[in-house]
Amino acid sequence: MSKPVTYASPDDVEQSFYQLVARGDADLLMQVWSDEEESLCVHPTGIRLLGLAPICDSWRSIFATTTLRVQAETVARWQGGMLAIHHLTEILFVGDDPNPHGPLYVTHVYGRGAHGWRLLSRHASAADDRHQARVESSSLTLH
Amino acid sequence: MSKPVTYASPDDVEQSFYQLVARGDADLLMQVWSDEEESLCVHPTGIRLLGLAPICDSWRSIFATTTLRVQAETVARWQGGMLAIHHLTEILFVGDDPNPHGPLYVTHVYGRGAHGWRLLSRHASAADDRHQARVESSSLTLH
Repeated sequence: MSKPVTYASPDDVEQSFYQLVARGDADLLMQVWSDEEESLCVHPTGIRLLGLAPICDSWRSIFATTTLRVQAETVARWQGGMLAIHHLTEILFVGDDPNPHGPLYVTHVYGRGAHGWRLLSRHASAADDRHQARVESSSLTLH
Repeated sequence: MSKPVTYASPDDVEQSFYQLVARGDADLLMQVWSDEEESLCVHPTGIRLLGLAPICDSWRSIFATTTLRVQAETVARWQGGMLAIHHLTEILFVGDDPNPHGPLYVTHVYGRGAHGWRLLSRHASAADDRHQARVESSSLTLH
């Protein structure tokens, strides 16, 4: 067994998460995830995985058919001593397609444990882009 | 101005959230929400609201057309001194329709501030119920 990777901050975990997604290696990707039973991942397809083995399987099946590159922008973040939450907007670049896909709305939960920070939960869902633009323009008008 | 409501725990906030959703009063519902700028709400329609006023408007427009009763089941929870995260499955009962709607996957983030605990973020998305059942039965077979 190799020594577990230690992440000093939620940002380190997050940066590593996106790098490993781009590499397309599900087993390596699991090093950012906490191995506790409650660890969870909700994909934008509406599938929820609980625990490291099902989460790993789901990413393996994604990487089996495509490559992914993610552009993430932080929208909100909350930081505690043992827990941190980052909410982001993600744009996806899928395979060789130069057109951006998404956006996704993503809530990442990080926890601090024996080996530093890890990802406890990723909840991703598809944004309704057109409707969102309408909401924001009406909000600018009304408020 | 009336005295702000004080919630002693994330569970108290959550219980109040579901009671106030069932009452259908958006202004009352906002008493469970933190009034910080980063407070956010992602609806299962793929719309994201940032800040108390847009969040309140969105619930007001939901309550204007229907009544909602939510059955929530906790799936995972993480508790820190200042932050807490509950991940839940929600079943909705809409108007007079006796059939359950959903399920939704929901990540609630709670924060402790000057007036006790408040809801900082609600991220709700639609579950793909049929596909989820297939994932779970294949997972039972394989692992």
